[in-house]
Amino acid sequence: MIDEILALIQNKEFFKLRSTLSEMNAPDIALIFDELPEDSTIKLFRLLPKELAADTFVEMEPDTQEHLISTFSDKELREVLDEMYVDDTVDIIEEMPANVVKRILRQSDPETRGHINKILNYPKDSAGSIMTIEYVNLKADMTVSQAFDRIRATGVDKETIYTCYVTDSNRHLIGITTVKELLLCDPKVTIGDMMETNVIFVDTFEDKENVANLFDKYDFLAMPVVDKETRLVGIITFDDVIDVIQEEHTEDIEKMAAILPSEKPYLKTDIWELFKNRIPWLLLLMLSSTFTGGIISSFENTLSACVILTAFIPMLMGTGGNSGGQSSVTIIRALSLNDVEMKDIFKILRKEAGVALLCGTTLAVVNFAKMMIIDQGAILASGQDPIMVALVVSLTLVVTVVCAKLAGCALPILVKRIGFDPAVMASPFVTTIVDAISLLIYFEIAMSILHF
Amino acid sequence: MIDEILALIQNKEFFKLRSTLSEMNAPDIALIFDELPEDSTIKLFRLLPKELAADTFVEMEPDTQEHLISTFSDKELREVLDEMYVDDTVDIIEEMPANVVKRILRQSDPETRGHINKILNYPKDSAGSIMTIEYVNLKADMTVSQAFDRIRATGVDKETIYTCYVTDSNRHLIGITTVKELLLCDPKVTIGDMMETNVIFVDTFEDKENVANLFDKYDFLAMPVVDKETRLVGIITFDDVIDVIQEEHTEDIEKMAAILPSEKPYLKTDIWELFKNRIPWLLLLMLSSTFTGGIISSFENTLSACVILTAFIPMLMGTGGNSGGQSSVTIIRALSLNDVEMKDIFKILRKEAGVALLCGTTLAVVNFAKMMIIDQGAILASGQDPIMVALVVSLTLVVTVVCAKLAGCALPILVKRIGFDPAVMASPFVTTIVDAISLLIYFEIAMSILHF
Repeated sequence: MIDEILALIQNKEFFKLRSTLSEMNAPDIALIFDELPEDSTIKLFRLLPKELAADTFVEMEPDTQEHLISTFSDKELREVLDEMYVDDTVDIIEEMPANVVKRILRQSDPETRGHINKILNYPKDSAGSIMTIEYVNLKADMTVSQAFDRIRATGVDKETIYTCYVTDSNRHLIGITTVKELLLCDPKVTIGDMMETNVIFVDTFEDKENVANLFDKYDFLAMPVVDKETRLVGIITFDDVIDVIQEEHTEDIEKMAAILPSEKPYLKTDIWELFKNRIPWLLLLMLSSTFTGGIISSFENTLSACVILTAFIPMLMGTGGNSGGQSSVTIIRALSLNDVEMKDIFKILRKEAGVALLCGTTLAVVNFAKMMIIDQGAILASGQDPIMVALVVSLTLVVTVVCAKLAGCALPILVKRIGFDPAVMASPFVTTIVDAISLLIYFEIAMSILHF
Repeated sequence: MIDEILALIQNKEFFKLRSTLSEMNAPDIALIFDELPEDSTIKLFRLLPKELAADTFVEMEPDTQEHLISTFSDKELREVLDEMYVDDTVDIIEEMPANVVKRILRQSDPETRGHINKILNYPKDSAGSIMTIEYVNLKADMTVSQAFDRIRATGVDKETIYTCYVTDSNRHLIGITTVKELLLCDPKVTIGDMMETNVIFVDTFEDKENVANLFDKYDFLAMPVVDKETRLVGIITFDDVIDVIQEEHTEDIEKMAAILPSEKPYLKTDIWELFKNRIPWLLLLMLSSTFTGGIISSFENTLSACVILTAFIPMLMGTGGNSGGQSSVTIIRALSLNDVEMKDIFKILRKEAGVALLCGTTLAVVNFAKMMIIDQGAILASGQDPIMVALVVSLTLVVTVVCAKLAGCALPILVKRIGFDPAVMASPFVTTIVDAISLLIYFEIAMSILHF
């Protein structure tokens, strides 16, 4: 596809090029721009019809956008900006270096510039930072047919026209209606009589994750955003919400893997940033395993007397970590889907205890059999009784799995209770705690059964 | 709220109850039903206006739905079913026991029953299984004003009216248009002249995860689904896609934590099911750590000569596992967001090697300092040279972190290449591999530096 486009540019077959591109969707054209050699992008961009050009520009990678802006004339930049929705302009500004931002702001009309600056000032992750200010605004004393006239007159520039917002003279949000309801309604009815007055809205400072949850719950197309005086200042549309859900999910996964959340796609993140996001947890977890080392040191005599016990430490710690990780990740996800709450903690502990006993017993039985078949020789060679050693390891397994699963499910709930993100209580952290617990259990059981 | 509602029921204040409920949204009323004692639900349900009743019913928990269906008369059930969209009916049927399903199908009208059976027959996770058959169907020779007449006449029963589909006499999909475009168009223009003919559609058998990716890319409100002969058979709406994205996230997270994916919310899953989802990976990972045990056994002489080395095994394995887990989870997520591909593997390996060297060196330096300060006494007591032991452990750290990060980033890509889900190559699996590698490195370095 790229080669085809390049050949068309080379042969100056601009008419064919234009008609090919006009048949395509903006996200697909943007992919072509991202792959194209930089010096060809501006030629291709100038061939696009104005509206499609702006839609395509929004979908490009920041690098491509920056290069295009640098080759745009002021007039071209102004034309693209005029076609774009304010929330998309803000998204682009957030990725650009300062000098490009200045140029964008200089070429925006004063009103838009004001809106952009306002949105840029809302805290990161707030509803205000992802809203758009282009919505259809109706008045309660309009008739349905006047409402349609207004939609027709102003709708081209609105990101969605399907949900319409009714405000009073002070811009307070007093009702909503939809194009579907308007279409099914008598044209002579006034908006005030047919609008829905029970409106669900969010504050500009609401966390965008909560906004996404509300969309998920109510199946909204768009949601109004109000300021402290409940004046309507913007709307959030469903397509931005899908992006929020994806970002939040990436953040959750990163936290669960003991990584500080990053903002950029992997290939765009440089080594230094990746390092900065990963080293803090690695250091913390490494230093906290000092305790585990301390436990082993303090049981050094037991270990010297029976070095074969060391061979099963990795398996015990691994199984404990995996068991605890399963529980913690399950509960973290259930918490973020609102499937479980603080008040369910005893129900959860009972359930996990049951699962842990089943898992622990199964693992212990299989491990006992495996040790008698595979490890018997090695244990005999070290001068120990295989049955006794297998018993110690298998018993430890049961107790470790139970402790791991109980700690794994309780920790995320407790951490959420004290106001932190439960996602940090996933496998890596739980594993470190479970490592220490399982070693203590192991040595205690070994000492009482093998009589050191 | 629940107590208030219960009091109103008890005092038979039905008028007040009805007006309170009518002001509320279906998802919120459904939450009340889920909390209410079972014998009160039917009384409350009968108070709801017909349409709101059906919308609320769709949002309830399966248990509440099942109880309500059992108390419905045939007429009541029919009324609720008539108000519901086919995709919602199918969702409910999938959660109900066989006898309830039979009753639902018996009370549906024959045409709907046919549609339900068809959707139920599509493979789980296919586009066909989540589509709805209620869409606005236009013909190319209609005028815009005739199209509006058709939307007004049939729109009440359609899940979305905003995207309209144009089909020929054989039901082949030939174009789409939107209510926005229709509103902004001259009423006398024919649909064939104004419709978009470059339509993006999916096959009924397309994986629903791919459908979600297309929504994310193109910001669709709805997407048409066609059969093998490209005849339009249904549409998928954005609200169902948000559900798909959430489900896929849960599945990804479960796979990464070595759990087989479950279908139900945590509190609805019984202990036996949780056990069945968790034990296979626990068993597999436990048995594969036999190798780690074998490595330790084979170096038993080294360990007997220097038991203090054992104290650092948990820290080394833990740090290796965490480092590898960070890389694998980062790459798994990047793969599922299409941020990286197979062809980027060398770019990724270079990047991870760089990060690994930075992380490994930092960890090694901190560890060396920590061992000289905290562990010096214990090492001296065991008759070893603290500097030498700290050197062995720190060197092992660097090599382990490099190996862990390279394995962590390469494994998910290779697994995807051979056609499996890369999510299984997350921390638990990577940890098991890295455990074995780090032990081998540890003993090799120990033997060459400490001269056993």
